[in-house]
Amino acid sequence: MKFGTLFVISGPSGSGKGTILNKVIDDANVSLSISATTRQPRSGEKDGVHYHFMTREKFLSEIENNNVLEYNEYCGNLYGTLKSEVETLLASGKDVILEIDVNGAKQIAKSMECVRVFILPPSMETLKQRLSLRGTETDETLNNRINQAHSEIDEAYYYDYVVVNDELEDAVKKIKSILEVERLRASKMKFKIDRLKK
Amino acid sequence: MKFGTLFVISGPSGSGKGTILNKVIDDANVSLSISATTRQPRSGEKDGVHYHFMTREKFLSEIENNNVLEYNEYCGNLYGTLKSEVETLLASGKDVILEIDVNGAKQIAKSMECVRVFILPPSMETLKQRLSLRGTETDETLNNRINQAHSEIDEAYYYDYVVVNDELEDAVKKIKSILEVERLRASKMKFKIDRLKK
Repeated sequence: MKFGTLFVISGPSGSGKGTILNKVIDDANVSLSISATTRQPRSGEKDGVHYHFMTREKFLSEIENNNVLEYNEYCGNLYGTLKSEVETLLASGKDVILEIDVNGAKQIAKSMECVRVFILPPSMETLKQRLSLRGTETDETLNNRINQAHSEIDEAYYYDYVVVNDELEDAVKKIKSILEVERLRASKMKFKIDRLKK
Repeated sequence: MKFGTLFVISGPSGSGKGTILNKVIDDANVSLSISATTRQPRSGEKDGVHYHFMTREKFLSEIENNNVLEYNEYCGNLYGTLKSEVETLLASGKDVILEIDVNGAKQIAKSMECVRVFILPPSMETLKQRLSLRGTETDETLNNRINQAHSEIDEAYYYDYVVVNDELEDAVKKIKSILEVERLRASKMKFKIDRLKK
């Protein structure tokens, strides 16, 4: 049986991971997992497309049933990843990408086999510039984000792969290569070896 | 400090691993390790280029000094891989490829960190055809090689990666991707993470 690989991708705000992943998922064999949340849909957001929207009661019962791989609370709302969602995609032979923070990545690694990739900015200067260019940050939130980036980068040592996002196209190519190469793992190629043994 | 990765590549006779590797080592960052042997140089063979030629006494003392990663005896001559040779190349930042059989691969994995890649033929039919085309095999040696291929392929399950050599260019591309991706391992990227932490 062919089955997909779960990839967990982290990186500090400003590392460019969102932009990279949007380019990577153009590949038909890769899906981004859709998160579950208890927050209200914003105008234009569709259930099952942008998020799986659910009541707090439902979310808590999913946790109770061990169907939440990782979650956190932000501004009074719960956000998380449903195990059933990820497992269905993997079973269909697709690779699944989860874009989550370092704490979520740790939670997931406890309950599912996954390949973890950390995206680094080329320098802290560049990170600062990228965050400033957004124009939405005050000096205080900017400093907070830089401090948070430092503590997140401390976790990069414990990931499987590290990709520096210096040139966007190069970083996209590297992530795609990681996806391709993970399909060559002996465990994933078992059916090909089996076939020769017949 | 940057250091290279040791790749151990195996595959049955007729899998095409030699042809693949000749194309892969065109990449300047990869070296094939030169084996040591006690057999006499053939006409045109140069010491330190085709083999490290040495006396049996010298070879045995290298074994004694734990400087032989793997070896075997064939037609009364010893053939093996010198640890000092591999370590010097790795320390210079180069990746090193060793093309060895499944038994040699097992010996090496015991004493050095390495990434093991197994090259499969697309089918046993193709393997048979490739071996027959060499025109150097009698029916008996051909059957022996096929039997040996079967028992070698049993070991493919325990390698890190498995590459099917169906189309040569595709197989070369896959091996090159494996080499590239292994350079993105967090342990190899440590110096880049360190740099951001300064």
